Amino acid sequence: MKVLFIGFGNVARRLAEIVSADPSLIDGGLEAVGIFTRSRGSLAGPGLDLARAVDDLKEGGSFAADHRAATTLTPLEASETLDYDVLVELSPLSIEGRGEPALSHIRAALKRGRAVVTANKGPVAFAFGELQALASARNAPFLFESAVMDGAPLFNLARAGLKGCRVQAFSGILNGTTNAILAHLERGGTLAEGIAAAQAAGIAEADPSHDVDGWDGAAKTAALANVLMGADVTPFDVSRQGIGAITATEARKALDEGRRLKLVCRGRRRGSSVETSVAVEAVPCDDPFALVDAYGAIVRIETDRMHPVVIAQEGPDLNDTAYGVLNDLIEIAQGARKGTMP
Amino acid sequence: MKVLFIGFGNVARRLAEIVSADPSLIDGGLEAVGIFTRSRGSLAGPGLDLARAVDDLKEGGSFAADHRAATTLTPLEASETLDYDVLVELSPLSIEGRGEPALSHIRAALKRGRAVVTANKGPVAFAFGELQALASARNAPFLFESAVMDGAPLFNLARAGLKGCRVQAFSGILNGTTNAILAHLERGGTLAEGIAAAQAAGIAEADPSHDVDGWDGAAKTAALANVLMGADVTPFDVSRQGIGAITATEARKALDEGRRLKLVCRGRRRGSSVETSVAVEAVPCDDPFALVDAYGAIVRIETDRMHPVVIAQEGPDLNDTAYGVLNDLIEIAQGARKGTMP
Repeated sequence: MKVLFIGFGNVARRLAEIVSADPSLIDGGLEAVGIFTRSRGSLAGPGLDLARAVDDLKEGGSFAADHRAATTLTPLEASETLDYDVLVELSPLSIEGRGEPALSHIRAALKRGRAVVTANKGPVAFAFGELQALASARNAPFLFESAVMDGAPLFNLARAGLKGCRVQAFSGILNGTTNAILAHLERGGTLAEGIAAAQAAGIAEADPSHDVDGWDGAAKTAALANVLMGADVTPFDVSRQGIGAITATEARKALDEGRRLKLVCRGRRRGSSVETSVAVEAVPCDDPFALVDAYGAIVRIETDRMHPVVIAQEGPDLNDTAYGVLNDLIEIAQGARKGTMP
Repeated sequence: MKVLFIGFGNVARRLAEIVSADPSLIDGGLEAVGIFTRSRGSLAGPGLDLARAVDDLKEGGSFAADHRAATTLTPLEASETLDYDVLVELSPLSIEGRGEPALSHIRAALKRGRAVVTANKGPVAFAFGELQALASARNAPFLFESAVMDGAPLFNLARAGLKGCRVQAFSGILNGTTNAILAHLERGGTLAEGIAAAQAAGIAEADPSHDVDGWDGAAKTAALANVLMGADVTPFDVSRQGIGAITATEARKALDEGRRLKLVCRGRRRGSSVETSVAVEAVPCDDPFALVDAYGAIVRIETDRMHPVVIAQEGPDLNDTAYGVLNDLIEIAQGARKGTMP
């Protein structure tokens, strides 16, 4: 399997390490034909050594300009011209850019009938309908298990296990940073301390505002509404409340009343549209959502044919995200499925 | 899709109703070519009308002996000789019979390369390895989503979402009757009252000893160990404790200590084997297992590649079980997969 990596941060490097340690995971093995980074150089073509690339980037390093595989192609040109089987898109989410530039890379790959795996929630949050139609028309797999739940098999569960069901609603706790901060407030801490702790744990971004202001949750909510419910919404359509105004006093008052403040993502059908929101809710302590602590995640799915189903993961980290990408690659390698959602 | 039903109780009849209400669910539709019951007559061949069969059995009815499709074939003969695409095996579990007679029906179907869907946990609890090998050799789908979790997509999650993972351990609350009885004890009730309440709710069998003594849990534990972990165990190999000796005093004492008594099924690798058990545990109230109330179910899966994943379902009933069978039938109709577990 010839893979083009766009974005080669911690998740991509962990994925490379997992596959190097056990090449049998992917039928036929994984060969990197391109590695593109935003600020640390890019490689393409013969002479590209995946293990060495991982080493080169350790501890803030870059690809040497005189590397024999160094390239001046842009990521978009690479997507459009290199010979690869799968584009692994792991560049960061851009809300302001409405999913770009990842969206353009993915569109270019799918137009060429190449498979795409991404852990970036932007493309499904902003353009799932278009990308799904394109993938289907070109018979190209388009998989994104790690985009919303860090590799927990949420989309696989929905695809394989909810056949013939119509999803009526979902709810979830999907942002570990805000969840951990709210727990910190319950212990009497401040927002700033909570953010610092999440950063120290390697969970929050250097700029935590996307988490704190609910943008990450809004993007995940839009992604779930689009993928699970066939909605056509973007993160800008999601009614959005952040946690910036929540105080320790409020968090502790809720706790005294047997409730925990949680940032809850929701989607629900209203007539022919899907209503979406991200908001702080006071969840009763005997609700499974109240038990999602620190960086854990949970999603509850209501359908027209079954009692609600819940999937949860305890404390996912970048290793889980890397696994989700691996699961998608294994599926493509097995040729088990063409196209995307049924 | 030509379907042979063996066992035509509440789940089968609910399935027939769902498919009759929306025939588009199964590509090409569903045609019953045989319906076999233990004590209410059997039908096969031309003249078999599924909707009428459902009506005939309502309120304790039987198939009329002069029904033009009445047959004297045995279920095993039907499995071996009728022309069908899918055997839907919905006869009740037999621990004493080590999964028989369902096991023989399924073996006969798979030997002929016919697909099998079952909600009976016996065959996977007693002979999964053999049946999987047979299904694989004959390229015949063998699906059983409803066997352990009443249709919640547990096996679909594992098949689709845990590729390349090795399951190291699982735990679960999988028997609604005992879970509801333990909750009844917490409220100060007696075992007998708890059983009566579960029977009134239509959950417990007329003879509740299989639930109370932990046999149902042991069968589900063996099924999970065999399917998820490649073990080769039967319910008789599972270390088994029932709830018959638990009193309200014990249940309330645990509650006073911030714990809830739960009948927990477990499997864990020990060297090259899998250790399995069903036992009453005092679960801390901040464990998701403590929130599984009444007839709910939960399974937690530990793998070598991810943080633990949890799947839960709120209060499943026979409608969910019927849906699980439907999901399996849709998968077969879509031809999405041949064979069985990857």
